[in-house]
Amino acid sequence: MSKLLIVGTVAFDAIETPFGKTDKILGGAATYIGLSASNFDINSAVVSVVGEDFPDEYLDLLKKNNIDIEGIEIVKGGKTFFWSGKYHNDLNTRDTLDTQLNVLADFNPVVPESHKDAEFVMLGNLHPLVQLSVLEQVENPKLTVLDTMNFWMDNALEDLMKVIEKVDVITINDEEARQLSGEYSLVKAARKIEEMGPKYVVIKKGEHGALLFHKDQIFFAPALPLEEVFDPTGAGDTFAGGFIGYLARTGDISFENMKSAIIYGSNLASFCVEKFGTERMQSLTGEQVDKRLDKFRKLTQFETQLD
Amino acid sequence: MSKLLIVGTVAFDAIETPFGKTDKILGGAATYIGLSASNFDINSAVVSVVGEDFPDEYLDLLKKNNIDIEGIEIVKGGKTFFWSGKYHNDLNTRDTLDTQLNVLADFNPVVPESHKDAEFVMLGNLHPLVQLSVLEQVENPKLTVLDTMNFWMDNALEDLMKVIEKVDVITINDEEARQLSGEYSLVKAARKIEEMGPKYVVIKKGEHGALLFHKDQIFFAPALPLEEVFDPTGAGDTFAGGFIGYLARTGDISFENMKSAIIYGSNLASFCVEKFGTERMQSLTGEQVDKRLDKFRKLTQFETQLD
Repeated sequence: MSKLLIVGTVAFDAIETPFGKTDKILGGAATYIGLSASNFDINSAVVSVVGEDFPDEYLDLLKKNNIDIEGIEIVKGGKTFFWSGKYHNDLNTRDTLDTQLNVLADFNPVVPESHKDAEFVMLGNLHPLVQLSVLEQVENPKLTVLDTMNFWMDNALEDLMKVIEKVDVITINDEEARQLSGEYSLVKAARKIEEMGPKYVVIKKGEHGALLFHKDQIFFAPALPLEEVFDPTGAGDTFAGGFIGYLARTGDISFENMKSAIIYGSNLASFCVEKFGTERMQSLTGEQVDKRLDKFRKLTQFETQLD
Repeated sequence: MSKLLIVGTVAFDAIETPFGKTDKILGGAATYIGLSASNFDINSAVVSVVGEDFPDEYLDLLKKNNIDIEGIEIVKGGKTFFWSGKYHNDLNTRDTLDTQLNVLADFNPVVPESHKDAEFVMLGNLHPLVQLSVLEQVENPKLTVLDTMNFWMDNALEDLMKVIEKVDVITINDEEARQLSGEYSLVKAARKIEEMGPKYVVIKKGEHGALLFHKDQIFFAPALPLEEVFDPTGAGDTFAGGFIGYLARTGDISFENMKSAIIYGSNLASFCVEKFGTERMQSLTGEQVDKRLDKFRKLTQFETQLD
């Protein structure tokens, strides 16, 4: 059984969308990645940090989903990272209302012994130096995937570039790809980013799907057209968790297999947005995932009569 | 050999993009639709109107592409419809600088005898009453496709609704689908538009591809990720021409075959934007189209290992 190591935030979110609002609920990149990857039969562990205010039931939820939480440090007297945001009416843009780093400010990640030999490593969105530290503690991974965002491009570009140089795959959104590369065309942007280090570039376009680039090859996974998007929080992390979870489960890191991996990523993300926070991911069954995979197939597979 | 009847503008365009600008060049919805559909072995005819200022070489160009131009009225002393526009830097939006209706103001379309029995009818963007008149002159078409735009929703909604009620397929862009239906979700928008008449709804999303809806079925054709988009003018019409051209060529109007039809539409549109105006479409070969179809296949076709 493949081992997957995940680093990222485990946090409280307070979310407001046109459909309602929540108090502090379970959130964080590593949470979404872990829950998403738990849909595959793999051995995953999360490295993160929370405060003493973090409820046991949330930790139990991760354990219940076969996620090893030994690497989640609980800081005595500390407060858990908190993010609060409000989505605009089109759900494509949001304002951050509040960010409290709390215990994240002095986070020094320690990879548990059990997962130092993890074949798959997912560096969820966090300070690039934290990501780098995790990468240095892992012995000889088969595939490393980096997720990051514009905040680190604006505030810690030099550190970020050091991580980008070392990973196999980077997943970022279209605007971030443009910012990082200085190219408007995503084809050109991906090529420039490959020159920075990663052999594979995944560009997430939200409701417009995701693109996978490797040298001259391109693959596109659509987002499933939905009647309602309830809450986009965590969709990108869920996508990343499905991507690396599928690769870890199959053990095949070829470009052909990465095609299926981003389809699985889109598949899982399409569930995530159906309810607030992690709610939908908590109730998700393998049967539902399989059924929706069939929808993705019908959505994109075709046979022509002329060639 | 199937007959395809096309109504739409045959016009002069003056275009400015970040990459350059043109004087008056050949343009118009019916021109792009006709050139695109001419990539299939069908018998097509254009119904339109031009002024005495319209160059013979442009008419010869259409004839050379096996387009019957008997239905293009040439108004003595009249001036040809003229549109001028300037694209913004992202090429997704544009400003109209000038619109001169000229001979289009009093256009009374006459379908040539040879094509009154056309099995396929493409109503390109024009005043809905002109589209309606063409529809009424055709005897018993197998498939009718309507393209329109927000201008007619704003200025001639009642007439537009009469055409929408009568056609089998409508092709509009995402913003227009939202305006017409009052729904933000494209899934809901398509359902509402189906209730207005069309059995099939095609929603064009430009660089984000196109969606085909029919009852509970959805298919998605991506746009080909391109290094450079030179000039988006006519891409939507080229898409529509490829869609109906493929259907006319195969004679199969099933949902399954429409999937391939929108792939062909995307395929042809991806060439159109590579040069100014109709330039790229004029030099396009069947071999190039086939080769790019293979790119579309690689872009979207996948096989998973888990199900």
